[in-house]
Order: sequence, then structure tokens, then C-alpha cells
Amino acid sequence: MTDRFAFRLLKTDGGARLGEIATPRGTIRTPAFMPVGTAATVKALYPDQLEAAGTDIVLANTYHLMLRPGAERIARLGGLHRFMRWKGPIITDSGGFQVMSLSKLRKITDAGVTFQSHIDGSTHVLTPERAVEIQCLLGSDIQMQLDECIALPATPEATRGAVDRSLAWAELCKREFARQLNNGAARPGQALFGIVQGGTDEALRWRSADALVALNLSGYGIGGLAVGEPQQQMLDTLELTALRLPADKPRYLMGVGTPVDLIDSVARGADMFDCVMPTRAGRHGLAFTWAGKVNLKNARHADDPGPLDPASTCPAAQDYSRAYLHHLVKSGEFLGSMLLSWANVAFYQQLMDAMRTAIAEGRFATWATETRARFGGAETGSDP
Amino acid sequence: MTDRFAFRLLKTDGGARLGEIATPRGTIRTPAFMPVGTAATVKALYPDQLEAAGTDIVLANTYHLMLRPGAERIARLGGLHRFMRWKGPIITDSGGFQVMSLSKLRKITDAGVTFQSHIDGSTHVLTPERAVEIQCLLGSDIQMQLDECIALPATPEATRGAVDRSLAWAELCKREFARQLNNGAARPGQALFGIVQGGTDEALRWRSADALVALNLSGYGIGGLAVGEPQQQMLDTLELTALRLPADKPRYLMGVGTPVDLIDSVARGADMFDCVMPTRAGRHGLAFTWAGKVNLKNARHADDPGPLDPASTCPAAQDYSRAYLHHLVKSGEFLGSMLLSWANVAFYQQLMDAMRTAIAEGRFATWATETRARFGGAETGSDP
Repeated sequence: MTDRFAFRLLKTDGGARLGEIATPRGTIRTPAFMPVGTAATVKALYPDQLEAAGTDIVLANTYHLMLRPGAERIARLGGLHRFMRWKGPIITDSGGFQVMSLSKLRKITDAGVTFQSHIDGSTHVLTPERAVEIQCLLGSDIQMQLDECIALPATPEATRGAVDRSLAWAELCKREFARQLNNGAARPGQALFGIVQGGTDEALRWRSADALVALNLSGYGIGGLAVGEPQQQMLDTLELTALRLPADKPRYLMGVGTPVDLIDSVARGADMFDCVMPTRAGRHGLAFTWAGKVNLKNARHADDPGPLDPASTCPAAQDYSRAYLHHLVKSGEFLGSMLLSWANVAFYQQLMDAMRTAIAEGRFATWATETRARFGGAETGSDP
Repeated sequence: MTDRFAFRLLKTDGGARLGEIATPRGTIRTPAFMPVGTAATVKALYPDQLEAAGTDIVLANTYHLMLRPGAERIARLGGLHRFMRWKGPIITDSGGFQVMSLSKLRKITDAGVTFQSHIDGSTHVLTPERAVEIQCLLGSDIQMQLDECIALPATPEATRGAVDRSLAWAELCKREFARQLNNGAARPGQALFGIVQGGTDEALRWRSADALVALNLSGYGIGGLAVGEPQQQMLDTLELTALRLPADKPRYLMGVGTPVDLIDSVARGADMFDCVMPTRAGRHGLAFTWAGKVNLKNARHADDPGPLDPASTCPAAQDYSRAYLHHLVKSGEFLGSMLLSWANVAFYQQLMDAMRTAIAEGRFATWATETRARFGGAETGSDP
């Protein structure tokens, strides 16, 4: 164990990077997938299942937790790790994205954003300083700066405005984080990441990246992607942004994605990912497997005694028949959501592990081509 | 392991009985609580959690399984044990109770009951013979005869009619069960239980019990109780029925009940119980503990760092704070239902274990008085 936050780049293979982030709460192997524990629980999974699946770090949502049960309450109860029984590192987003996507009656100024809770309509204010304070109360190992997220496509003016405001907020977050460290409210070994914005505009992305790098933060999120733009634009923007970021800091592509998205993004230099897809898909009867996506609602599974995924090491994918999973999903049973969410998170972690091994062995490109082809045999179904 | 179904009465203590049922799939310690796995899953629990909680036997519902996924399908898939990954004994009800309570457009004749599925409105017929056949297809270790269930209060004519029809069906079920044994569709060591009906009428209960005992079945259900009658009537009827049943056969009080119901019923000679209460209550934020019932929705738990039940050995009751459980319940999170269902089933099994120990040590009455008093401190809340 270390008392510092430190990223080590172990190997590169084309654009793909193998690394590890040392934190006082444990090591995060990168490329890393971070399951989303929105409300202090990765939906339908037990903490020990997450750990056994190979999860090094989970994400929790500042927006949700500030509204319920409240950051001060979690602090009084000993912090988020104890609250949700997760011993490893926790990353928290700043709430900016959820304020834009979930809350009502937003009013945004340079000072921050005023919004109404989607739960009870109560009014809340989130400033850069308060976003950091909340994340300190939660005890987050990796904090994200407050940023302004906009939907794509956006006008150049809106995009530039979001870049400028996000940069100003990054400085305020950095200052507040230093203050919290001096206060003892943040601890050495905790980290603050900036978030690169700029839509799909190269100049704006570079300006955002350069200014954040000048702040010398511990890592850099790449935000404002996977918000409606075409897939290729997302990948192009990721690539041009990653190239502008320092090699010795981790790069976190926020809110991405499908298994193929992850492969394509690792190929372009992304190190960290979070996405609700494995758990949300699981709750909707969709499974990710080494043979592609499987829709368990489909009647063709009703008599299938075989396991979900013989290539997976997850008990949920090995020990139960597809016929049983189909029955559980059709019957709306809890256990269906539980097993498929578990199998999906485990699959994502196995996918990351396979990527890390391929990079270590210098065969990432070949592996990626082969693996995409395996997924090409995926069952057609609605997107999760 | 035995290849026979055999009940041994080990000890009595007042009306309470300590026993065990040997089956080819394992021993059932009595008094036994049998968690309800309606649709081939005890809602929100993994099979290994059931086992670790001390569950010897689970119940599954013929009505639900015949409609979805279908008994023939389960047979093709290797039977219900393999389907739901439960290695221990399984008891199945005959479907009679659910036909009355859930289905639409019932038509009942001496031959059986025609009804429409509550799922899709399709028409189905359940005869005594088909009820046995279905339970053989499922591979049930303890089958229940098809019976006619009526709501209480009922007219004497309706009660008498249900008794007569249920007795006639018991004979038909016994004949069919023997035929299935000869066919090899039922296996030695599987058992068929009769069901005593008769409302709260002593003479009818005795007539029903005597006629069933004359059929020399492997055990006797006491049905038609806990269907709306006052608590004391239920207990009185149980007592007068149990006294009429042979000491060397297990007695199964169907669909009961709360922890205090179980204690009071064991005191009156009941050996086996099933009830959805622990799992249904868990899904509604209610927990059973050694200090009484706890409503986790209550705001007074919001800041409570203590465990749900320090007197329970279940990880769900020990490892998570009440504050976290409150948060999960308020947020409608899966994990809240999962943890509380688990804690409740474990509590019920610990309660049965405590009863068995008290009977073995000849102090059941004292234990029952003390334990009822502990529950007297229960938090007031709506009934699960």
C-alpha cells in the first residue's frame, strides 16, 4: 500500500496503454472498467461479487448522494466506503452531468448551478467548491471537477462557453481541493481529476486539454462524449484529445460504453471507463458474453439447458441454464436481474483483463480484431 | 442418505414436537420453515444463501410453474431441482390454493377445476391426476394432493362440500401417485401428503382427518387456515386437527405465518410451515429480528450506524448499517430487497432452530413465553 496517488505507465502497444494507479486503498489496473454505483450500490450486486469479478474501483454519483441520503450524513456515518461496504478505491463524479440530464429548472451561472431535485423538487446549489466539499465528505479516492456538460450537437458558442466555464471551475475545484487537504478534510493519496470538454471541435478540445494540463491535476477525464454524437466522431475526438494529454497521467473516458466501444477507446489511449450498461442491460434481460450480446427474453432460450457463457468464469454465467434465466426474465423475478447484472459486470472485467494481457504481450491490435469479430456474431436485439 | 421417505419423532415437549424427515435428497429437521419459491426462485435470494441460512427444504408452486415455464419443459430440462439449482428436498403445493386466489373464471366440478391463467388468460384444467402428474414432472420430493380451498367465513354447506370433494380428490391423487411410481415417473422416497379441510368446524375437520388417515398417506397438510379467520380460531382449529392426526406422520400447517404464529403453532403440534412473509416483507422494507419487527422505511434509522440485528448470524443482518438499509429501501434499490429478504429468511430459520433446541432441552414453553415477550418490544408498523 502507498500513501500517495501515483500512475505508472507500464507498457504501450500502439495507442493502447497498460498501467496501474496506486492509491492508499489499493491498486487500480488500467485499462480499468469502473461499475457504476449510482446511489451507493451497484444495482443488484453484492459488494463481494464486484470484488470477486475483478473490480478494482467503483464509481458513485455525487448528484444522487447529495440529494439522498446527503453527503454530511454519509460523512457522519464514516464515509462512503463504510456506508456501502466497498473497501477499494471509489471515484465520484462531480454531479455536473446528472444536473444536466436529470434535474429540473436548472439555472447556471459562473458561480455554479441551481437546480431542483428529481426526487422531491427541493432546490439545491452546486458550486465548484461545494462539489469538492461533497466529494471530500464522501471520502472519494478520485474526485472529478464540476464541469458544464452540453448535449451534442451544440453551437460553437455553447461549446466554447462550456469549455471556458469548465476551465474556470477546474481552477476553483483545484483551489478548494488544496484547502480541504490543508484542513484535513481530504487526505493525501486522494486525487482530483479535471475534465476536458470541447464537443467534437479539435481546437476547443486542445485548448481545454492544454489549460487543464497546465493545472497539473492527477488525471484527466474526457467528458462531453457519448452524448448523442456518431460513434466515429466520439472515437476521433477521443483520439485527438488523448494525444494532447500527458502520457504520465491517467485518462478517463466518461460514460463509455459497449464492449466494442471499450476496445476501440483503449486502442486510442483511454485508461478508465464507467458505464451503467452492464447493470442496466442486465436488468432488462440482456447479457454480454464472449459470443456477443444475448437477449434472454428471446423465446429461443426457453429450452436451452446450456449456460449463458461457457467462456466466462462468473458463476452466474456458468451455473444456471439459459432456460432458467429466460424464465426468470420473463417472470420479472429479482434473481434474473441479479444474475444478469452480475454476469455482465464480470464479463466487462474479464474483457478489461483480456485487454491488459494483450497489451502486456504486445498483441493488442490482433486481439482487438479477433475479439470484435467474435462479437460480430452477436444476437441482434434492441440496445440495452 | 436414505432411499425412503421417513419421519422420526424424536421428542415431544407439551404439544411441541421435534423430529426429522429423511428423504433421498437430505434430511428435513422439524419443526421446519420452508421458504416459498413461487416461480422456482425464492424471491431475491441466491440458492446458496438459502442453504447457508439453514434451509432444509423449499416450496414451489405448481400453479405458477404449470403456467410458466410449464411442467413438461422443466422435466425436459432435468427437473425442478436442477432448473432452480436447489439440491435439497422440494415440496410443491398442488395448485388448488392459487387457482382459487389468483386465476379468473374458475369452474369447479368433481373432475377438477378449469381456470384462466392470471398471466395471459389462457385456459387450463387441473384435475387431481394432472396435479400429481405435474408434481412428478417437476420432481417434487413432497407432493400435495389437489384440494378445494374456500375463504372463511363460509357456509356449512360450502365447507362440507369442500371437505367431501377434497377427500374424493385425495383418493384420486393417491391412485395416480401409485401409478406414477409404477411407471417410474415418481421415485421411491418421494411422498404424497393429504390436506385436511373443514373450516373451523371440529366435526368436519375430524371427518376430513380420519378419512385421510385411512388412506395412510406420508404426511398431512392442514389447509384452509390463515385465510381470513381470527387468529385464535386458527390456533384452535390447528390444535383440534393435530390431535386427530397420527403422531408418526408430519403435520404441515399451510401458509402460516408470522414468527409468533409459528411459535404458537409449534406449541399445538405443527411440524412444517411455508409462508411468503419473510420475503414479501423484505421487499417492502420490513425486517424480522430478535428484537421484533423493524420497518426500515422509518426515518429514525436514517442515521443509525448499528446493524439490523446483532443477535442474528446472517451477514445481511450483521454487516450493513440500518442507515444504509434505510437508504436502500427509500431509494428503491435492489440491494435493499435482497438484503432484507435474506435477513428475514435467515431469521425464520434461526427461529426454527431455537425452537428445535428448546424442544430438545424440554423447555419449549418457557422459551416460547420469553421469545414472545422479546417480540412484544416490536416496532409498530404496518403488517407485511
